Amino acid sequence: MILGIDIGGTSSKFGLVDDGRVIARARIATTGHANDHAFADALAQEARQLAAAHGSAITSVGIGAPNANQLTGIIEMAPNLPWKHDVPLARMLSDRLSAPATLGNDANAAALGEWRYGAGRGIADLLVVTLGTGVGSGFIVNDRLVLGSAGNAGEVGHMTLIPGGRSCTCGRRGCVEAYVSIRGMLATYTEEGGTANVNDVKGLADLAHANDPAARRVFARSAEWLAIALANAVCTTGPRRIVLFGGIARNGDLLMAPLRDHFHASLLNIYQGRVDLTVSALPDDDAALLGAAALGTI
Amino acid sequence: MILGIDIGGTSSKFGLVDDGRVIARARIATTGHANDHAFADALAQEARQLAAAHGSAITSVGIGAPNANQLTGIIEMAPNLPWKHDVPLARMLSDRLSAPATLGNDANAAALGEWRYGAGRGIADLLVVTLGTGVGSGFIVNDRLVLGSAGNAGEVGHMTLIPGGRSCTCGRRGCVEAYVSIRGMLATYTEEGGTANVNDVKGLADLAHANDPAARRVFARSAEWLAIALANAVCTTGPRRIVLFGGIARNGDLLMAPLRDHFHASLLNIYQGRVDLTVSALPDDDAALLGAAALGTI
Repeated sequence: MILGIDIGGTSSKFGLVDDGRVIARARIATTGHANDHAFADALAQEARQLAAAHGSAITSVGIGAPNANQLTGIIEMAPNLPWKHDVPLARMLSDRLSAPATLGNDANAAALGEWRYGAGRGIADLLVVTLGTGVGSGFIVNDRLVLGSAGNAGEVGHMTLIPGGRSCTCGRRGCVEAYVSIRGMLATYTEEGGTANVNDVKGLADLAHANDPAARRVFARSAEWLAIALANAVCTTGPRRIVLFGGIARNGDLLMAPLRDHFHASLLNIYQGRVDLTVSALPDDDAALLGAAALGTI
Repeated sequence: MILGIDIGGTSSKFGLVDDGRVIARARIATTGHANDHAFADALAQEARQLAAAHGSAITSVGIGAPNANQLTGIIEMAPNLPWKHDVPLARMLSDRLSAPATLGNDANAAALGEWRYGAGRGIADLLVVTLGTGVGSGFIVNDRLVLGSAGNAGEVGHMTLIPGGRSCTCGRRGCVEAYVSIRGMLATYTEEGGTANVNDVKGLADLAHANDPAARRVFARSAEWLAIALANAVCTTGPRRIVLFGGIARNGDLLMAPLRDHFHASLLNIYQGRVDLTVSALPDDDAALLGAAALGTI
């Protein structure tokens, strides 16, 4: 039985995963522990109890976390977690649970989750892009996750889309993330003259469905930008499929219909008809756990 | 002994490669044969003679060619070669020389050549970018060339650099190749108000050394553009090193000095200090043969 753990800023979810299904789940607070060791103690104890309650043994552990380096098993000074130092969480949980543990960043976990259990199953060359507060990604090449020489490959969100363009949280300008993340789309809404009070993608989608012209233009412009970014990413590893993950991609055809058109138009001729574009089909609540569990299978 | 073959539009070079050195070389015309089979016959015969003259046996064959698909071993309707149909050259030469043969495109051959014999030796995660008439590239991940699902991965030259920008030969707009290839640099020279009659990079370099202000700006602008393109490519597979190959990169510090500065400025923080940028050190005359031979080693 694989234990999947999704470390979040306020709470950390964990679950027992068998054959691509989450058969039991629980959560503990990420904050409020004396230190990282106390957090690991509490997490390991709860996980053991969950497994015992289901008569299962934990055979491997997969952990998805922000700022996680898979090569080292360390969470590196994550700004949104309580510990402002490096936390070697893979080793800490492996010791406590007497099982091998693999730590990976959220986007890589999502990529592996899609590849093993989701819309990317059976696809040896896959790109998964997560669209949310930020834009993350994971590349799979020849059935293996690309980690890069320093364990930090796959930052499609920080490829430059518009040289000299919008400021990005990374300190640079014109990144993909500054345009097609939630924050980017809200910025576009203002740029397009939108005046409604809106602070998430659901709100933008509601406005677009109510024919707010600025909100409609947000989805049109975002589709154009994202299409270029995805077509650029295809030019590197030549994936067979791109899976989009996260709330932005799940707003029905508002984004996906124009995105498919623009993607087709943006794609280099030699890739035409050789890359398909799809939306994650994993259940919302379980996707992060399944992704984390997929880390436990590699 | 590996036979390396570099198929060109007018002539095809071939050579015997041992331990990273070309120990004998020859060439035949690519044009003027009755058909592709006659060309393969002639090439195989000359190669056998070369090997016999050196008392060697050909144990494997590597072939670099334009429009070559490594997955299929086929040259796919190459516009610059005499045969306007698919040529399964890997099988044709393997049959004639009774040795395994691997066909790959020029840029992938260059990448493998650098990785096995050149400035990328020992680097498991490598990116090689060829700067010439076009801009090609090859990605190595975990010591393996990335082919992509359809055998056509690694088109950094056709990533969009400036959305809606210059027309590219591929029919799209704003590609890297439209800016930092030879043709791109000549276009920049005109855009920058240059008036001298110049038609190659050597000419641009001579003008820059003679303080032609437009020519100097060409190298400055090209460095800026190429830096963004390379920083974008780093965001995908996270290479440890980038090797630049081709005449454009070999003009001393005209390009490389500003390129290093801009690359540093363009790189996402998490990659800072973790990617180096270098120029191919393979001898000009042998680089293509060594690259082709490297295909014969995989």
